[in-house]
Amino acid sequence: MSAVLDRPARGSRHRLQRMPERARYDVEAVRAVLDAGLVAHVGFVIEAQPFVIPMLYARDGDEVLLHGSVASRLMKTLAEGLPCCLSVTHVDGLVLARSHFNHSMNYRSAVLFGRATLIEGPGEKRAALARLVNVLIPRRAELTREADAQELAATKILRFVVEDASVKSRSGPPEDHPDDLALPVWAGVVPLAMHAGPPEPAEDLHPDADADDPTPPHPAYVLRARADT
Amino acid sequence: MSAVLDRPARGSRHRLQRMPERARYDVEAVRAVLDAGLVAHVGFVIEAQPFVIPMLYARDGDEVLLHGSVASRLMKTLAEGLPCCLSVTHVDGLVLARSHFNHSMNYRSAVLFGRATLIEGPGEKRAALARLVNVLIPRRAELTREADAQELAATKILRFVVEDASVKSRSGPPEDHPDDLALPVWAGVVPLAMHAGPPEPAEDLHPDADADDPTPPHPAYVLRARADT
Repeated sequence: MSAVLDRPARGSRHRLQRMPERARYDVEAVRAVLDAGLVAHVGFVIEAQPFVIPMLYARDGDEVLLHGSVASRLMKTLAEGLPCCLSVTHVDGLVLARSHFNHSMNYRSAVLFGRATLIEGPGEKRAALARLVNVLIPRRAELTREADAQELAATKILRFVVEDASVKSRSGPPEDHPDDLALPVWAGVVPLAMHAGPPEPAEDLHPDADADDPTPPHPAYVLRARADT
Repeated sequence: MSAVLDRPARGSRHRLQRMPERARYDVEAVRAVLDAGLVAHVGFVIEAQPFVIPMLYARDGDEVLLHGSVASRLMKTLAEGLPCCLSVTHVDGLVLARSHFNHSMNYRSAVLFGRATLIEGPGEKRAALARLVNVLIPRRAELTREADAQELAATKILRFVVEDASVKSRSGPPEDHPDDLALPVWAGVVPLAMHAGPPEPAEDLHPDADADDPTPPHPAYVLRARADT
């Protein structure tokens, strides 16, 4: 199986300090991978033990907002400014070759190194929460009630400041050994993508809900468009 | 936004030492999350810097096989038996509430703590590679050419031995504040799942390929079944 999902070691991290202009291509590539996802895997270290936790995120310029529970010890630890690693991966397809060795996957992944700080100010916190809601469905935050003081107090949001980032991807058909082309086995790519199913309305939905939900016209429609891009 | 994707801290890790019988429910839960996925995010530490890399994996009993490149410094480092954390997450739906705070996601995730060792013996290595191929499409390894000595030498496969594991999940409709039910905005769940698109045959496909591909009858069919479970 060809190497598809390994990462460059630290010494060869693609350096994008605060994403300068000279690395513009890479900045765009990192943004594109982040903007296509919902959940990041965030790694950090406590007493030599690595932790990897899935977190809902939203890109905010060249920083990343992360959402967690106020009660979480991990959020508190992250907020102390420890070195972090944030990884987002999209699986795009199965690459089916004629040999075990050349089987692979099509994917796009971004790995970001940096540190997180806690968002403290209520105004900034409220804006960050709205941004995280809009990651689920664009413009959803404008249609729903903002957080009140009590809810804000029960929410922790981190701002992840990027120090380095890199993108890695694979696309296209299998690359078989010439000798294997004589094997009469199907080979090619099975594309994979995240799709939305029919929305399941809440049982206690307000009777005027659909009519008063101007944008997006329908949650699944918007999400499907997002998944297809 | 309610806390959906945070993890218990290390002190409260659900202990499943070598997955004993007394934790059977959790063993089944961990297995189910692992068996529904293709890519794990693996975290480890080099000189106080956490790394999180996406890797193709296959469950092998209560251990996990991980695939990477022989040239990868990260694979070499992992193979030294450092403490690792392996995380697998499935996003099942967007939970759209009437308030920003109660927006959430439906998901299943497993977090495993343990250490990895390199698989050295050619026989064990060949079997592990076949198992990784069968994660892409069941029985695919039986239809395609096994790795030869040169290919085995160019492949590194790790065996991740689990020390602790836990599963966390959310399902069901949004849980709104009673006062918010009067808001005439759509609320509910938009289900999400990974689906296979139409297979894209390789351009140099053998003319007898379809006829000689007895099981599975068609890659996309099998994969769709997998995605729907």
